[in-house]
Amino acid sequence: MRRLPPGATIGILGGGQLGRMLALAAAKLGLKAHIYCPDLKSPAFDVTRDITIAPYEDEAALALFAESVDVVTYEFENVPARTAAMVAHHRPLFPDARVLATTQDRLTEKTFINSLGVPTARFAPVDDRSSLAKAVGAVGRPAVLKTRRFGYDGKGQVMLREGLDLDAAFGLIGRQSSILEAFVPFEREISVVAARGIDGTFAAWDIAENRHENHILKTTLVPATLGAAAAEAAVSCAERIAAALDYVGVLAVEMFVVRDAGGRETVLVNEIAPRVHNSGHWTMDGAVTCQFEQHIRAIAGWPLGGTSRRGRAEMTNLIGDDVNDLNTWLKDPSASIHLYGKSDARPGRKMGHVTRVSAEDSA
Amino acid sequence: MRRLPPGATIGILGGGQLGRMLALAAAKLGLKAHIYCPDLKSPAFDVTRDITIAPYEDEAALALFAESVDVVTYEFENVPARTAAMVAHHRPLFPDARVLATTQDRLTEKTFINSLGVPTARFAPVDDRSSLAKAVGAVGRPAVLKTRRFGYDGKGQVMLREGLDLDAAFGLIGRQSSILEAFVPFEREISVVAARGIDGTFAAWDIAENRHENHILKTTLVPATLGAAAAEAAVSCAERIAAALDYVGVLAVEMFVVRDAGGRETVLVNEIAPRVHNSGHWTMDGAVTCQFEQHIRAIAGWPLGGTSRRGRAEMTNLIGDDVNDLNTWLKDPSASIHLYGKSDARPGRKMGHVTRVSAEDSA
Repeated sequence: MRRLPPGATIGILGGGQLGRMLALAAAKLGLKAHIYCPDLKSPAFDVTRDITIAPYEDEAALALFAESVDVVTYEFENVPARTAAMVAHHRPLFPDARVLATTQDRLTEKTFINSLGVPTARFAPVDDRSSLAKAVGAVGRPAVLKTRRFGYDGKGQVMLREGLDLDAAFGLIGRQSSILEAFVPFEREISVVAARGIDGTFAAWDIAENRHENHILKTTLVPATLGAAAAEAAVSCAERIAAALDYVGVLAVEMFVVRDAGGRETVLVNEIAPRVHNSGHWTMDGAVTCQFEQHIRAIAGWPLGGTSRRGRAEMTNLIGDDVNDLNTWLKDPSASIHLYGKSDARPGRKMGHVTRVSAEDSA
Repeated sequence: MRRLPPGATIGILGGGQLGRMLALAAAKLGLKAHIYCPDLKSPAFDVTRDITIAPYEDEAALALFAESVDVVTYEFENVPARTAAMVAHHRPLFPDARVLATTQDRLTEKTFINSLGVPTARFAPVDDRSSLAKAVGAVGRPAVLKTRRFGYDGKGQVMLREGLDLDAAFGLIGRQSSILEAFVPFEREISVVAARGIDGTFAAWDIAENRHENHILKTTLVPATLGAAAAEAAVSCAERIAAALDYVGVLAVEMFVVRDAGGRETVLVNEIAPRVHNSGHWTMDGAVTCQFEQHIRAIAGWPLGGTSRRGRAEMTNLIGDDVNDLNTWLKDPSASIHLYGKSDARPGRKMGHVTRVSAEDSA
């Protein structure tokens, strides 16, 4: 693909806060954005002129959308394969259909990761009740039974502790094709957020340490508490994954930090998010180039921007009613507040986030 | 005015790059923007859903616009008085009509500034050929003859050196009501960019040092090279001006740094820009809160954000063909690039800007 000129249009599938922040980043670079989303009340619709409101299965609408833009990307990994194929028929799609196919299925994803020599938790496929028993034999307990597709924020998961009946467990996840993963007694959760350009250049931000509440990311701290060797290994895992996928754009690789038998820190990859990621929001205030701009640069065929960090960063998600604390945050002179333009603060809904960046030596 | 809730709409008169960056800042805070501009190709139209394309004299369009928003502001100081009055009849206008009246006329502006005990260059009114001779007698030469209204970027100005015929000079500026200002042999040009909230709180960013080429701002360096006493005096001038105007929003006060008879640095106010200002663009990358967000916070009745600086900042305007250097800037890992979405790189046209922020001790 040629390098897009300023004034070109980025097509974005999905109109949530990630699509919104991608559109804002495109605007910073003098690029236009066209948001495609079936939801009339999409937050991203407020920040761009060109929108399409249509289902992801509407082939005529997808064709019109793709023809009207210069490149297409997405804010969510569950873009239907047929949607991706339709779009890619007309315009370059980044990250491409193979990335989607690899990351939409937990079993395919983990198999792919291991094939690169990148470690994950032990896992085994579960297709029915009898293969679940076999998987438990191979993986052991405690373990986590997860649907192969469409899980997020802890949905589609069942913890298999000692004593839980396998019939019940398989029923709880809807008797779907699944994967059983060994429970990882992790010390902490981290993510490597990084970008790969069309020319194969790779650039990672410093590693993020993530804390979840109710399976939803609550805070990200950067840099993560992590030894140099483990940090280097983590970035190397992300780089190998990106290279093997011939990836273009920003990706996040979520990992667990564990101690190996010798007491050394080591990392296990949990999953790949083929998109900008909540654990990279701190880059909007804490890095020279933010993840949204970097993604736009990559898919536009532009050089990647610098990823230097400006200090210690702490990002806090405003989830549901948290947004009622807005006034407290507004009075904090170190806080940079981002609200997503959502009117309805439902429980668990990401309404915005706040980042504080402090001088490196004040931590 | 009550504090606006998230989701409220900011009305902005003017659709250039300042209106565009104000709209982007509103989006960061979960607020909507409605851009009013007569120019079909306004850069700000790309980044918001609500736009009105109509002349500033269209009273019906202005009424509809004002009724559809919660507060109105502007990106340019030459908003016609009648336009401001129309809008203010329906919704709060910040900064208000008195600010516009004071700053639209150089004579009124400088008289107002001096009335606060804030120093400017010597000046005298010029209404006709004979008052020009009298003004030259009072102010001396060299001096600058400027139209009272609608001058910007050096337009509407004539330098009166020894020997220039007064008839010719008065003819060059169109025989309009004018002001003669003593030429100031300044050491440097600086600006104080600051904000005042609805509650009267005042917050300035660190002082900017500005370098012009062909009367157009080329670079801004922050912090300015300036002694502590002069810096304190400069901020005090801006604060007194803002307080006397009961100002709400961001303003820039442009000043000259000169040596007094005793060799001490002192500042003379040149002009007040009642809006976000090119010399404040560095705040987008170099401060906790940028000038665009701060302006939106102020006019929305929200608390002002922190103005701490993240390092030494250098902002370079991309003017006309400068934008052809884009690729060089894109490869600079310390550069943050902002393009305004303008398609036609005419000479003198501001196409974008680049900011580099470096650690304080590396300067």
